[in-house]
Amino acid sequence: MSAFAVPRVFAPVVTPFDPALAVDTPRFIGFSRWLVEQGAGLALFGTNSEANSLSVAERRTLLDAVMDADIDGSHLLPGTGACALPDAVELTRHAVAAGCAGVLMLPPFYYKGVSDDGLFAYFAGVIQSVGSEDLRVLLYHIPQMTGVPISYALIERLIAAYPRTVIGIKDSSGDWENMAGMLERFPGFKVFPASEAWLGRALPLGAAGCISATANLQPGSIASLLAARTDEARAGWVDRVSLIRLAMQGQPMIPALKAVVGHYAEHAGWARVRAPLTTFGSRETGALLTQLNALGFSMPALGQAYA
Amino acid sequence: MSAFAVPRVFAPVVTPFDPALAVDTPRFIGFSRWLVEQGAGLALFGTNSEANSLSVAERRTLLDAVMDADIDGSHLLPGTGACALPDAVELTRHAVAAGCAGVLMLPPFYYKGVSDDGLFAYFAGVIQSVGSEDLRVLLYHIPQMTGVPISYALIERLIAAYPRTVIGIKDSSGDWENMAGMLERFPGFKVFPASEAWLGRALPLGAAGCISATANLQPGSIASLLAARTDEARAGWVDRVSLIRLAMQGQPMIPALKAVVGHYAEHAGWARVRAPLTTFGSRETGALLTQLNALGFSMPALGQAYA
Repeated sequence: MSAFAVPRVFAPVVTPFDPALAVDTPRFIGFSRWLVEQGAGLALFGTNSEANSLSVAERRTLLDAVMDADIDGSHLLPGTGACALPDAVELTRHAVAAGCAGVLMLPPFYYKGVSDDGLFAYFAGVIQSVGSEDLRVLLYHIPQMTGVPISYALIERLIAAYPRTVIGIKDSSGDWENMAGMLERFPGFKVFPASEAWLGRALPLGAAGCISATANLQPGSIASLLAARTDEARAGWVDRVSLIRLAMQGQPMIPALKAVVGHYAEHAGWARVRAPLTTFGSRETGALLTQLNALGFSMPALGQAYA
Repeated sequence: MSAFAVPRVFAPVVTPFDPALAVDTPRFIGFSRWLVEQGAGLALFGTNSEANSLSVAERRTLLDAVMDADIDGSHLLPGTGACALPDAVELTRHAVAAGCAGVLMLPPFYYKGVSDDGLFAYFAGVIQSVGSEDLRVLLYHIPQMTGVPISYALIERLIAAYPRTVIGIKDSSGDWENMAGMLERFPGFKVFPASEAWLGRALPLGAAGCISATANLQPGSIASLLAARTDEARAGWVDRVSLIRLAMQGQPMIPALKAVVGHYAEHAGWARVRAPLTTFGSRETGALLTQLNALGFSMPALGQAYA
């Protein structure tokens, strides 16, 4: 069965660093295991993973460590987009060799105002250079970071050229109309909104699940939402996950996510981020934890089993 | 004497590719030699060099080739900024080891809305990791590509913390007031506008020369402008270089630059670009060459001596 046959939640796994700001691989593996146990897939090397703050070599090494930890490839959806096509090819080839379910691919994001012809040539270049029948690409639309939107026209061309390979998209634009439009125009295309709060409206339209920052915090609840058998049960879960999502949305997302994970993992070092991000303050962390606590939030068993 | 003691022109050297879109190193070296002969320094790995479309390994290899070609380090100002701090450290360390006059450093450009604290930590992280007294950093302000502006407050903090290291900036914003403000606020700071058309106004205010896309096309004229001994002579050169600049400004700059270089270097392969850029059309190239020709433009001796 395809890894994307039924709606799934993927967490863009936050990346812990040691005091020298090197990747803390054991903690990353432990947290990844916890996410999988909770029912989430792993969108490692996403925006919330600080992937673009990691070198290509660091990302390769970390994916190798995940494989060595016997986390099954069917759970893995690493980010492999890069400004330089050779980097994207290297990362994508490595992900395919590791048996990943798919890759999440940013457009090249340095140049702005580029044409769909140029973006098509980039994605086609990666796909053809990798040259594998096993490759499954999800496009990554996050114009507020890249400045390079992925248009309907581009999606249409890519699907027409690579129907077995270009299978979906993560839409992080926060633009409901854009996402709903993709679901309508491209039946069968795996469209992932970037917020679990949208699932109540998006699943009936055919959304493929979600790939959400806050899936790092509430993977189990989102998995329960996706597994709900009745509209009423689903609506209950939507309400619940939306409150947590809302509490996080006002925060600097990545530093705040890491501070919360650090609290429940009982390791303050989790809060470290690489520049240009800055660490979430201890006062802010306390206030956020109080707020989350009041909403009944917890990260069950994280500290004991996976620290 | 410091490489930046008197106003200089640096060309963000355009990068030729072979039919497989690998870097065409011999042609890059030949063109670099021509630029130096014409009186320009080499801001290799700039925006116009498609540097962010090259992997770190490709940039290292190419800088090594430049050194092997006995082009003196005093001419070299490579771009070494990157989204990932480890990449910026590696590239900057390599540039210092190669004896480069300085490096031109982009801010990390994936995350948007980052704080000056985060950007300070990034630049400080590179400078401290490289840890060399020989390092000279020029900041690279190009918010229309990065979405990450470099503020006066950040410059002030960096100069205060690293007065011998952070010596200047390239301002590609196209915002005259921003550039004039830096010249006024930071006496002695090496401020490079990104257009030779501004030199008539900028040199009297203390500009350090220019680092300009079109320095690839008219390095000799810009060098003559900078060497002019009288206001009248300078004004004449400003008029002349500004016409060429203006003709190029309406074009997709990088593809158009490469098409023009290809014409004068008598090698059509020069026109190749990496995705997401797209090649300048042959009809457009013909029209542009006609326009440049009417302005008396040429690239003396490029074809014969350096092809």
